Order: sequence, then C-alpha cells, then structure tokens
Amino acid sequence: MLRRTSSLRIYLNYSRMSSSSCIVSVCQFTATNDKTKNTKVIQNLVQESVKKQAKMVFFPEACDFISRDKTEFKNLSEPITGPLMTSYQDLAKTSQVWLSIGGFHEKYDQDTIYNSHVIINDKGNIEAVYRKIHLFDVSIPEQNINLKESELNTAGSQILAPVQTPIGLLGLSICYDLRFPEQSTILRKLGADVLTYPSAFTSATGKVHWETLLKARAIENQCFVIAAAQYGQHNEKRISYGHSMIVDPWGQILAECPKYSTEKPSDESFAVATIDFDQLKRIRMEMPIMSHRRNDIYSLNLIDSKREIDNEKNYRFADKSIPGNTVFYVSKYCFAFTNIRCVVPGHVLISTLRPANRLQDLSEEETADLFQTTVKVSRVMESVQGAESSTVCVQDGKFAGQTVPHVHVHVLPRIQGDFANNDDVYMHLASHDKKENGNPIRSREEQSEEAALLRKYFY
Amino acid sequence: MLRRTSSLRIYLNYSRMSSSSCIVSVCQFTATNDKTKNTKVIQNLVQESVKKQAKMVFFPEACDFISRDKTEFKNLSEPITGPLMTSYQDLAKTSQVWLSIGGFHEKYDQDTIYNSHVIINDKGNIEAVYRKIHLFDVSIPEQNINLKESELNTAGSQILAPVQTPIGLLGLSICYDLRFPEQSTILRKLGADVLTYPSAFTSATGKVHWETLLKARAIENQCFVIAAAQYGQHNEKRISYGHSMIVDPWGQILAECPKYSTEKPSDESFAVATIDFDQLKRIRMEMPIMSHRRNDIYSLNLIDSKREIDNEKNYRFADKSIPGNTVFYVSKYCFAFTNIRCVVPGHVLISTLRPANRLQDLSEEETADLFQTTVKVSRVMESVQGAESSTVCVQDGKFAGQTVPHVHVHVLPRIQGDFANNDDVYMHLASHDKKENGNPIRSREEQSEEAALLRKYFY
Amino acid sequence: MLRRTSSLRIYLNYSRMSSSSCIVSVCQFTATNDKTKNTKVIQNLVQESVKKQAKMVFFPEACDFISRDKTEFKNLSEPITGPLMTSYQDLAKTSQVWLSIGGFHEKYDQDTIYNSHVIINDKGNIEAVYRKIHLFDVSIPEQNINLKESELNTAGSQILAPVQTPIGLLGLSICYDLRFPEQSTILRKLGADVLTYPSAFTSATGKVHWETLLKARAIENQCFVIAAAQYGQHNEKRISYGHSMIVDPWGQILAECPKYSTEKPSDESFAVATIDFDQLKRIRMEMPIMSHRRNDIYSLNLIDSKREIDNEKNYRFADKSIPGNTVFYVSKYCFAFTNIRCVVPGHVLISTLRPANRLQDLSEEETADLFQTTVKVSRVMESVQGAESSTVCVQDGKFAGQTVPHVHVHVLPRIQGDFANNDDVYMHLASHDKKENGNPIRSREEQSEEAALLRKYFY
Amino acid sequence: MLRRTSSLRIYLNYSRMSSSSCIVSVCQFTATNDKTKNTKVIQNLVQESVKKQAKMVFFPEACDFISRDKTEFKNLSEPITGPLMTSYQDLAKTSQVWLSIGGFHEKYDQDTIYNSHVIINDKGNIEAVYRKIHLFDVSIPEQNINLKESELNTAGSQILAPVQTPIGLLGLSICYDLRFPEQSTILRKLGADVLTYPSAFTSATGKVHWETLLKARAIENQCFVIAAAQYGQHNEKRISYGHSMIVDPWGQILAECPKYSTEKPSDESFAVATIDFDQLKRIRMEMPIMSHRRNDIYSLNLIDSKREIDNEKNYRFADKSIPGNTVFYVSKYCFAFTNIRCVVPGHVLISTLRPANRLQDLSEEETADLFQTTVKVSRVMESVQGAESSTVCVQDGKFAGQTVPHVHVHVLPRIQGDFANNDDVYMHLASHDKKENGNPIRSREEQSEEAALLRKYFY
Repeated sequence: MLRRTSSLRIYLNYSRMSSSSCIVSVCQFTATNDKTKNTKVIQNLVQESVKKQAKMVFFPEACDFISRDKTEFKNLSEPITGPLMTSYQDLAKTSQVWLSIGGFHEKYDQDTIYNSHVIINDKGNIEAVYRKIHLFDVSIPEQNINLKESELNTAGSQILAPVQTPIGLLGLSICYDLRFPEQSTILRKLGADVLTYPSAFTSATGKVHWETLLKARAIENQCFVIAAAQYGQHNEKRISYGHSMIVDPWGQILAECPKYSTEKPSDESFAVATIDFDQLKRIRMEMPIMSHRRNDIYSLNLIDSKREIDNEKNYRFADKSIPGNTVFYVSKYCFAFTNIRCVVPGHVLISTLRPANRLQDLSEEETADLFQTTVKVSRVMESVQGAESSTVCVQDGKFAGQTVPHVHVHVLPRIQGDFANNDDVYMHLASHDKKENGNPIRSREEQSEEAALLRKYFY
Repeated sequence: MLRRTSSLRIYLNYSRMSSSSCIVSVCQFTATNDKTKNTKVIQNLVQESVKKQAKMVFFPEACDFISRDKTEFKNLSEPITGPLMTSYQDLAKTSQVWLSIGGFHEKYDQDTIYNSHVIINDKGNIEAVYRKIHLFDVSIPEQNINLKESELNTAGSQILAPVQTPIGLLGLSICYDLRFPEQSTILRKLGADVLTYPSAFTSATGKVHWETLLKARAIENQCFVIAAAQYGQHNEKRISYGHSMIVDPWGQILAECPKYSTEKPSDESFAVATIDFDQLKRIRMEMPIMSHRRNDIYSLNLIDSKREIDNEKNYRFADKSIPGNTVFYVSKYCFAFTNIRCVVPGHVLISTLRPANRLQDLSEEETADLFQTTVKVSRVMESVQGAESSTVCVQDGKFAGQTVPHVHVHVLPRIQGDFANNDDVYMHLASHDKKENGNPIRSREEQSEEAALLRKYFY
Repeated sequence: MLRRTSSLRIYLNYSRMSSSSCIVSVCQFTATNDKTKNTKVIQNLVQESVKKQAKMVFFPEACDFISRDKTEFKNLSEPITGPLMTSYQDLAKTSQVWLSIGGFHEKYDQDTIYNSHVIINDKGNIEAVYRKIHLFDVSIPEQNINLKESELNTAGSQILAPVQTPIGLLGLSICYDLRFPEQSTILRKLGADVLTYPSAFTSATGKVHWETLLKARAIENQCFVIAAAQYGQHNEKRISYGHSMIVDPWGQILAECPKYSTEKPSDESFAVATIDFDQLKRIRMEMPIMSHRRNDIYSLNLIDSKREIDNEKNYRFADKSIPGNTVFYVSKYCFAFTNIRCVVPGHVLISTLRPANRLQDLSEEETADLFQTTVKVSRVMESVQGAESSTVCVQDGKFAGQTVPHVHVHVLPRIQGDFANNDDVYMHLASHDKKENGNPIRSREEQSEEAALLRKYFY
Repeated sequence: MLRRTSSLRIYLNYSRMSSSSCIVSVCQFTATNDKTKNTKVIQNLVQESVKKQAKMVFFPEACDFISRDKTEFKNLSEPITGPLMTSYQDLAKTSQVWLSIGGFHEKYDQDTIYNSHVIINDKGNIEAVYRKIHLFDVSIPEQNINLKESELNTAGSQILAPVQTPIGLLGLSICYDLRFPEQSTILRKLGADVLTYPSAFTSATGKVHWETLLKARAIENQCFVIAAAQYGQHNEKRISYGHSMIVDPWGQILAECPKYSTEKPSDESFAVATIDFDQLKRIRMEMPIMSHRRNDIYSLNLIDSKREIDNEKNYRFADKSIPGNTVFYVSKYCFAFTNIRCVVPGHVLISTLRPANRLQDLSEEETADLFQTTVKVSRVMESVQGAESSTVCVQDGKFAGQTVPHVHVHVLPRIQGDFANNDDVYMHLASHDKKENGNPIRSREEQSEEAALLRKYFY
C-alpha cells in the first residue's frame, strides 16, 4: 500500500522550469468494464500524443474502467501496486512522458476504494496520489441522474499541495470537486500554475455546467485548466458528456475534444496545446487578483488538525485505559474511539486527552477542539453507516446520566426509522453502559477492527 | 442602576503618580446585621485612618452587614444608588479620602444581588464596581463549614482592569477569588501595582490559608497586597478569622490587625503602612519574573467574546423570528435564547446567527464558538436552576429528531431525580415541540422575563 | 450621512415570501457625465419595467454618471442624502417598485467617495448600502485597459449580509467583486437566494469573462444571478460591454440585453424574467452542494474583529496617554494610532491595549491580534498613500532602539525612491523620536484629522 | 542520548493505585563539586529512607554536584547515559525504591547542558526527564544575589505531563519554576496528585519565599507538595537555605528538614511522611476549586504548535530551496531557518510554508502563526546570543527593500553597542543580500550546524 502523501510534499526540490512553454495532451474515450480494452486505448492515445511532442498526457476520471454495477465495481478495482497501475507506469517510462491517470479505482483494502488521481513521471514513478474529497451524491429525477458515489467510494481527507511537473505546479482535483471554488483557490494559493479536473460529467450537467465552470476556474485563479473527460455510452445506464479541453489563464479554450452526440455513442480523441508560462506570468502581473484579495474581510484556509495515533499506548479515560488500537482519530486536545457497547451501529465516543470531568472544566481551546473533532467524526460516521443524521450528546454531570467522570461526547449515526420513536435512542443511550440491555459487549478485536476502518477517513 | 464598567476602563487618563510613596489603612471589625452600627464603625475607622495620613482606607467584604439568614440577606441589601452607598460616598468626600468598600451587597434588581467591591474616590464618586466572580460553594462538615454563596449571590462576569488610585493601579478581587492564581496574574498583566482581597475568611481556613495565600500573591506577582478582613463572632452561626494585613511585593507583612481569639469575640482595628513605589520598581527590575514567563509554553488570557444584543431586532431561526428580547447572549457567531416550551426549567437553546442546517455546514470557527457559548450558557443555567449537571444535545438532522432546520444546541439543567429515569429527559426532549405533551407553551412575556434575568450573568 | 449598516442587519424581521415567484427587470444604458439625462433614462426604464409587472428593477454600476476625468468624478459625486439619491427614492415610492442602484458615487466626506450599491424599497426607503470591497486596479496595456479605481474610490470594509427583498434574500456585490468566489460563497452561506453584480465591464474583459463568471456564480452557489451592466461608449476614453442578464440557479440565461457592438455606440434596454423560488428549492435539494462542502478540510469565514473606539478616552501607551481621537482602529487586544512625528507620510503605530514591554510578554492570542491588526493597517496605509510596499518593524528592547517601553509596531508605507537608499528609512526611524531630525512634530489636530480619515477604511 | 519524552506520555497504562497511602522521603544535604562524595551521601540517604519504608526518595536540584565556576560546571556535567546517572539507576534497582533526582546537570551535547529532573523507577529505569523551563536570571545586589543561569544552562521547551508513580501522578518542576503559578496549575489540570519542586533556594529568598510559595501551591492546587532542597555552604560563594519539606493538600507541613543556620554550615538530613490519598480526595470534594474555575472568563492553556522537521527535504522560499538541515523550527504554517549571510550573529529568518509574496496575501491564521513563531524564535535567539533586545523586521514589498518575493521576517538579536548607531543595523540589513558588504557568505555546513544547535531549544 502506498504511503499517503503529506500535504507538504510539494516543498521538496522545488525549482521553476527554465523553458517558457511545454506541450500537453488531453484525452477522452469511452471507458467500459473491459480493462484490457481501456488500457489499449490509453496506450494508443499516449503514443499519438507523444508524436505531437506532448510532455504530459491527461486521462479522465475512471479511465481504468467504468463498471455496470456495484459488484463489478468492487471486483475490477485494484490496489495502486497492482498490475494495472504498473502497466501505466511502464507506459510512462517507455514513452518517456508524464501521465495524469485522472481517476483510478484504488482498492486500498477490503472495504475501501478511493477515487484517486495519480500522477506518474516520465521515469515511471508515482509522484502523487490525490483522493477525491467531494463525492457525487446527487439525485435529479427529472434529468435521469441518480448517483450515490459515497456508497462505493471512500472520500479522501486532504487537498494535496500542487505537484512539480514539466508544466509547472499542477493542482489536482477530480470531477465534482470542480463545483467547489474553495478547493481550486486554495490550490492556487499553494502555488498551482495549472489546475486539472479529470471528469466523467453526465450529459445533463455537462451541457450546462462543464465549459462554464472550467473557464471560470481558469479566469478566477489565473491558471491553465486541463480537463480530460469521459465520452459517450459506457453501458446501458450511463452516458458521459465528453468535451475534454485545455483552457488558458484568460479563460480561452486552447484545444478541445468533441461533446457527446447520439450519432457517435463511443469515441476516442485527444487535443494538444502549448502551456505558455510567459502568458501566465503576464496575466497575473497585469491583473493581480491574488494581491487584491481581501484577506482582512474573509479568510480561506486549509484545515489540518490531526495528530499521530500511537497504537502501543493506552489513552486515559477517567480511571480506564483505552487501547491505542481502538482509537481512530487524535487531535491536539482530543481522541475519538470505538465503543464497547453501541446503542446503534457506529456509536462512537470523543473525549479529551486531559482528564477533565465536566465541559466547564475545559479551556476555550479544548472546548473548540472537542466539538470540531465531534463534527469531523459525525461526518465520517454518517458516511460509513449510510446515515443522514446524527444524535450528538453530552451527559454532562452525574445527574445527567454521566457514569464515566471524564468529559465525552456521544455520536450516534441515525437512520430513518432506526427506533420506533426517535426518543428511544436516548433511552438506550442512558442505559447502555449500566446494565445488560440487549446491546452486547464487543470484543477488543471488533473495536480495533472498526477503528482501523475509520482511520482511513482521517489519515 | 450603575452602568457596568467595561474592562477597558483603565486605559483612560492614565498617569503615574509623581510622589514615590503613599500611606494606606486596612481595617477590620465585626459586622452584624445592624447596618447603622456597622456604618458608625466604618466612619470611626475612616476618621482614625485619616488622622494617620492615610490616603485610602480599605474595608472587608460584607462591611455593610452580615445577615443571620436568607431573608435578612435579601431585606438588608440595597442598590448601589441607595442610602447606604450614598453615605459611604459622603464619608469619602467629607474625609477627602479614597475608600475600598470591599464587599457590598449590591441589590441589582428583584432577583439579583451581587457581591460587589466598590472603589470611591476622595470626591465621593464611584470609580469602579467589581462583582465577585468566584462564589464560595464549599461544604467541609468536619470543620463546620457549609456555605453556598451562589444561593444568595449572582456571580459577576468579568475581571475588572486595575483602577487608577493614589496608590497606583489597584487590582480588585474579593475573598474566595484569592484561591485562583489566574485572576491575580491577569490583574498583574493588566498593570496592577497593588492587589486587594477584602475578605471574610472562616476561622478554619483562615488559620491555615489566609496569610500564606496573601503572601504568595504578593511574591509571585510582585505587587503590594492589601487585605481587609472581617473579624469575630457576627452572630450565633458565623465567626471570621480577621488578620487584616498589608504585604509588600517581597512578601513581608508591613502591618496587620489581630487574628481571631475567643477571648475577644468582637473587635475593631486598623493598621497603616506606606506603599513605597521605589521598592516595587526595584524588586520588579531585580527579579523580572514577568519577562521570565514562558508565553511560548503556556498561555493565560482574559476571555471576552460577548457582543451586544439588539432588543429591537428579531434573530433568524430557520423560517422563524426570535424576538431580540428573548435572547440573553450573543457571541461572534451565535445567539442563545429562552424556549417556548421547556422540558425542564431552564431548558434553553443556542443557535448560529448564520442560518445553517447541520453541524457539518458550519466552519471550524463557527463550531468552536457555538460550543464555547454552549458551555458558558450551561454554567449559568446550572447556577440559576441550582443544578449540578446538564444534558447537552444536538439533534443533527431530521432522522435524529431535528424539526427546525437551523442548527441548535439544547441545554437542559438537570437535578437529581428530576425524571424517574434519566432517559425520560430525552423522551420529553424528542417530543417537546411536536405535540401537546404536558409542558405548556410559554408566553413571550415569560420568555423575555427569563432572558432579562439571564443577561445579568453575561453582561 | 447614513449610518453604516452592520453586517448582522439581515437578521431583522426576516420572513420568507409567500408567493413562489416574482418578476424582475435588469437594465442597461450608456451613462455619461450628464446626470439629468442619466436620471431620465432610469426613470423611463423603471416605468417600462413596471409595465411588465417587475417588482424590482436593477441598474448598473455608475448608473448615476460616468465622468470623463478625476475632477468631474469628484464634482459630480453626491452624498447619499443628496438630491440624486432622493430622486431615486421618490421614483421607487411613486412607482411602488424596489430599486437596485448598482453603483452610486457616494460622497461620504470631503476626501472619501465610495462605490456604493444601494437598495431602495417600494416605499422609497433605503434598505441597504453595500460599499465595493475589491477595487479594480488593473493595467493591461495590450488591451488598452489602464484603470486604478483606488485613486478615486475608497474601498468598503465589509461584506453585507443579504437583504430581504420581494425576490428573496439578495446578496450584494459590484463588478470586480465577481472575480472573487469567496465573497459570493460567503453570501450564499449567509442565506442569499439571489446574487447581484451591477457592473461596467470593459469591452475586452466583457467578451471573455462576463457571461462565464456570472453563470459560474449561479451554478456553484445555486442562486439566481442578476447582473445589470453599462453599455457602450460613455466618452472618448471608455467603452462598456453591456450584456446585462438574469441567470437561473442551474446556470441558464433567462433574459439578456445586447452585447456591445460598434454599430450601436449607445443604447438603452432592459430584460425581464421570473424568479422561480420552487426551482431554487428543487435544485438545492437535488444537488445539495452546501452540505457536500468539506468544512473539515477547508474553512471559509467572514472576519470581523474591530471594536468600538472611544473618542473621549485616552489609550495607555507606557506612561503616555494617546488621545482617543488620534486612534483609528481598535481590535480585541490592540489599537492603532497616528504618529506625532512621521518618518514618511502615513507612518503609524500599532500597540497593545495591555501595557506589555516586549513581544515575549504577550500571550499567543495577543501576538496574533497585534500582527493581524498590523497587516490590516498596512493595507490601508498603502492604499491611502498610494504605496505598494511597507516597512513593518518592531524595535523590541532598548538595545534595538526601543524608547517607549510598551510593545508597538511601526508601519511605514513605502514609495519607489522615497529614500536615496532603502536603508535610510531605518536611519530616520531609529532617530525620529530622539532628536530634531527634520520631521516636524505634528499638532494633535493634524493627528486626529488623519485618524478620522483612516477610520473610514475600517468602520 | 535519551529520546525526549512527549508531553502525552502520561496517558499510557494509567491506573490508579489500589492502596490508599504511601510513605515518601525528602532529603537535603550540602552538595559540593565532589561528585563521589555527593553520591555517597545520596546512597546513604536512600538506605536510611528505605529503612523508614519510603517507596520514593526525593533529592534536591543539583544533587549531582554544585560547581565553583563555569569551567567546573561544564567539566563535571555528564550525559544522561553517563556513569553518574547509571549509578543512580543501580541504586534505585538495588534498593527497590523510586528516586527523584531533582536536578541533574544533563550534558546533552557539546554546547548544551539542561537542568533536568529525572524520575527513576524501582527497576532502575528512567521514567521521565523534565528540563527546567524557567531559568533563574536574577540580580539583587543588596542581597548579594547575582546569578545568570541561562549562561550555563539551556532552558527546556515543555511542561511534562504528570508521571505515574507509587504516590500517584507526580507533576515535575524545578526550583525557580515554583514562582510561576501557571505551571503548577497546568500540572494539576493534567491530573497531578503531587507537585515536586527540588530546589537550591538562596538564603535570602529562602527565608521569605520558600515556605510560603510551597504551601500556596499545595493549597491552591489541592496537591501534596514535596520539595527537596540544597542546604548550607557549598563553596565560598554559595549558600543554600535548606528546609526541605512535605506539605499536605490543605497546606500543612507534614515533615521538614532544618533551615540553614550559620552554626551548621553543612549537613545532611531527610524527612518522611505518609501520602494519604483519602485526604486528597476528601479535600478536593469538599472544596471543588477546579470546577469553580471560571474557564469562561480566563483561559490557561499549554501551547504546542511545533511540527516535525524533515531533514531530507528542501523548503520552498520563492524560487530557492532551503535545505531541511538548515531549518530549526517548523510550525503549522511557517518555518524558521539560519541565514546565508548574517548582519549580526544569530540573524535568522522565518517564512511561510506556502509561497506568498506579501503579508497581505496571508490568511489571518497564517499571519498569527508567522508572528507567534517569530516571537518564539526571537526569544531563543536572544538566549543563545546573550542578547536582551531584538530587531524584528519585514521588508514587505520591493520598495521596502524586499528582494526575495516570499514573505519573511528578519530577527536580529541585539547587544548593547553592537552598532555605532542603532540605525546602522538597518543599513546593513538593507544591503546584506545585495552586495558584498563585509558579512561573509556562510557555508551550508555552518548554517546546518547552527540549525542543529537551535533545534534543541524547540524540540
């Protein structure tokens, strides 16, 4: 398993390019569930791109395959060390070209598949793995869109600092990320020269949103934008819009592939353009939007508050010891751990590292961190449990039902109809650690397995 | 009613004294429930002190009176504009001396009595009113101590910046505050030259703690300490330790009054010393403890996050309007308000100013502020309701029982046995805004009256 | 002079509309330096719009006038209480229609003109005044663009919370603000249903950026976008692009006015569309991008840390008193004030409210606030002085030249060639408060006048 | 070299003692520069203590030796892995007793000696090493005190979480730390049951401050206090006060050794007492001062913002690469590194990890972190350079002399008379990276050696 790349990775061996321009190629095709066939198309597109002097070739999201169903999705996915990624690396090495594998179904472990954008350099080494942070959970009945990406994929947990490539610092996103301007602007702030959005836009959203959003990201961040897209009819149920393109920092299309047309249900193509660093420099100088930003009025920041978990240690919880391997998140002042007895599946606890009895005993910083951690945790628990609500509760003091005198927050993911009456959750909560009430005590193995699973959402 | 003094008050018209020393007097006597008699003693002690050239005279906590019971406590208390305080002001003016009225039972309104330390200048004007922030709720059966000050007094909500007086910048505390070194060190950081602790220490704690803590505060903050104390047998039930003293910044007693002795059940006395600013300066220069502080390792701060409430406005709560006069606290991002239907007495809500649906929709700053506010509020609600626990709960999402789609925290003060089973609280909580369930809808008048009461704990 | 509207203003008397749709009109014309003529056009466009049942009519930036030069700019500008604004209010009242006066040259005082977007309700009352926060200082020689708005206008200091109107909560921006997605997303977070961008886009940027950015803001924030634009040849030097439009939350143009064409150098027109709240609701429900935001990975916040200045008070600065009227900004822990003797014009000081000697004596929070304030102040000083650099310096300790033992930051706006050698600035800085060195001592009047001027940039 | 203990170390394998009391011994003697002799005394005191059933024996600061001068100080110091510490470990193991070696001259490397409080368990293993954070730099001529500990010792960089011992959780401090109540209260908040202050108080301060401060720490934190002290005439120049003691949580002395008397210039003794956990529990329950703390009014926190440095990486500085081994501190958003050309010795730079040009380009969080880091760094640089002032300067923009377009702060430690005129520093600063100006370019080796030295002050 590849070590997750830290967000500071970019700062190493940074050096600006000497040459002032570079050719790139953006590709599109109609991926199916036939991985061999998809790979052949990719090989062909690389070959052709290299003939056009491209130094880097961009492929769309899901260029490894597009499955017809959940089972296929799981079966076809491979680890990043598997044969498919290796074949891409060989291809890059042989062709002496950089590759953007825009969305690879990265099988991280039995239960986890990330939607990963992988950058391979011209020696065949993996330079970066960005895991998509915004998953497409959208249902628009009247346009025949009904996708819940989070049922299949695990969301990434960080924005990756831009990667040094022959075309400058490259900021990585995937598809739906495009809709969140915060991510792109943070990438620009981290130094990006080029923004990429490998995608598989639906036909309906593609028509109205695709070109507009790509150009807007180019204009407002003064970056080149390279967007490789899936095209055409992948199977009976799914059609992609296509229209891969390269946009300059002024917002003008430099090169583009076709938009989807029913006349041509499947197709492959690529488009080539020159990335002109002088233009980039000139535009940024003439309209210095970054220095016009009102950082005194609004504030846009990356957040990163996680700390290392020590598996070998126990974490103090009043007079109890919580084994490190049942802990799944540690922040500056808090830790989150799995529960010995759950009122609902995914019922977890967050407590302070410092042994304090009541909320009132915490400093303002500790309170802030405790609940920021709680929100992070409840987001993940809902995702893991397929829930859309959470009960967040502190029994603060013994007359409120607190039995362990060390401040802790209960998070319970809630599903429609999980209790006959909503209030039953509290009844169970109140009694769950006091008596045998139906919910069994879980083994430490079960608890640590759950923790291992959850860690992937944070680290 | 006197306008509450802002904590920045000190910064006005600051100027160092020209002279390098000044005489002060610290007094003690045996206050009773006879206000007239107490006042006469005070007048006498002032007269005598002035004869000794004192420029400022210090009186103990509860120098206005010490009551025998709750009813007397309430009946004897006066507003700060009442005849008793006026008589002190007249005394100061006539005697051309500054007074520290170390603890005045300040009747703020029908339900509110503060333990207030009042500074009167030599023109008879009130320069500062500090309201005690740490209330003495202590029960030591084996030493016959059983006091719950919070049943009678309302706690203040701020540390007052030091006040400019003839003896330099004077930092105000009262009695039990002495036990919390944070308060004194903050006062020193705010510029205090002299720290005062007007007190009514019990005989038991006086014997062991009084002198030690006073000297420690002087030494560790390099300030003069002036501590006027109640002495003797006030009534059948209460004895005070006495031992008023003036300590120099090196920790040496400059002058002192007697400790309590059964041979002399009641007594009045005063002690006089010179405050030598040159000594203060020299000690601070020779052992510069303030600049030796490791502000890079620990951090000690005043907190002040409250914002103005606008009574005339409505605060948005999803598609509802919350009238400003039912709001009792506003922070940077949140507001707290009284409830239309309470599951338990003191059941209140805290919500965000910005209309967001779920906890996940908040920024990290908003989350921090929401729960810091929650903790502040729950502390007050417990105090008001005489509770020692709180249920703190967010129904985050509709399947967790959220009915108003605007993120809000429930705070419910809990009392032993308030429900047959602890879990019943949740049953009521879950159903309280859905149907007629026994708890009546309250009128806006009732809600705004409660809000008015609560504001006194924050503003 | 109108009281500046607080950013929480929106929360008052909020109530959702009962009807589910509403007609609006967006206008464009060719404003010139003839205010009377411009007003007539406006009156006519209002009349026509009302005939089409419009409940609100939108006019472009600078609809009051477009001047030919700096002098005209100043002479034609009027206070918000002047006859021109009054005539707009009368118009709104008479026509019983809401108006968006997209950019009014608001003469705030002798030296200050804001670019203000004014909302007038159908009773003729001003509901909101938003002052443009991003000024267009752009020079693109090859496209004949060379504008420095900040030479004429003063930038506003806050994002205004959305205003309740017949078409829902309306988020206010002006022209160049459109390029900064943070502002629009914050407005959406504050509840905006409709975003407005009254503009005067140049022909060059209009062609490439206008439509794309407007649609992108609509799509990514799921808001209606209404953008009134200047059209045509205003004078010999200036042409605007036109193409006023109304975009729906899906990013589709509902109605539009013509783009600039040389064939028609001047023109007036309007376009009308229905704002359909049901569509808004449906789109937000189907693609819930606000709840898909990763507030655990990035954080976008409004900043507001200013506190009231008290003119009547003095602020402590070691053993000196700084008169309140020479102070121009106060934050939680700091204050900024004008200088008695300036090394360069605009040389100002920022100090802590608490009297601390060295940087090391500050808590982490105080340090943060001191330098956040410093950056805010240096931005303003550069703008006021027309500078593009600043020397920011702390003489921390007496051997580093500190003469006042109260920590303070020097900010000196720097202009190319202001000193023979850059280092001369320090020579002057080091000596400026020690001896007569050429820079005269300024009177308190001069200092307080400068402070009054500066406050407008913060409050 | 021992790995530095992380501040979370305590949380491992925590378990409360089963027995409710435990005997401890506190020792004092007259250490000299004869290590062998000192060790013999220690061995003897341990033997005697064990006979009294002591489970843990406490020795004073500098129990290894007290030197006569600087040279001796350096020559006698040993690494923690050296023979002296080994002999203490053997002693603990053989005697089956826990030891507190209250102040060991820990030779960390050629240039670094820490004043370290070492806890050894009854198996002979080192459980904790606390390095004194407040160094005694005090000069009181009239009392013949003139010590500058920072000339000999390097200050530690963290408060250690309490250590689990047979007498409960033990909070570690050393001597002068006693004067800073923040440290002790933080230790209590971290769970301490017992506070220790091994010391070598001077005769002058001992007489007035010793007993008072020890009792105050016991009372205000409701902890046992164990304080072993040096006694008597160590050499011609130095006398210590003695009076080792054990104080109970109510502030009463349980056992004590003699105070210094000229009649007995040197002496050894020990005192034994029982630590009664039931008393501790009762006192805390009866007077619950920790829950009476007003965490809503003041805030006391540990600070820890350092991040790992990666030696293998380069850190980006505009278009330059800063080698990881010249970096000496990394925070969340910033890094500090040694300079290639110094205007004064110790001239270092702090820059942002993210490549931003101007201060105005930073978010509020980045600005805060940049200057908090600056203050941390300047404190260390002054200590290393023996300076008492610093010039802190940002050349913000090219007209202010900025040559590297990546925001950075200059810190220059300043010594009296380091420049003919104070302003010369700026002249040199302004020109130092532009031309050959006398200060030589330093080799990378020199820079990384300095960085290695500096890291010890932060990590």
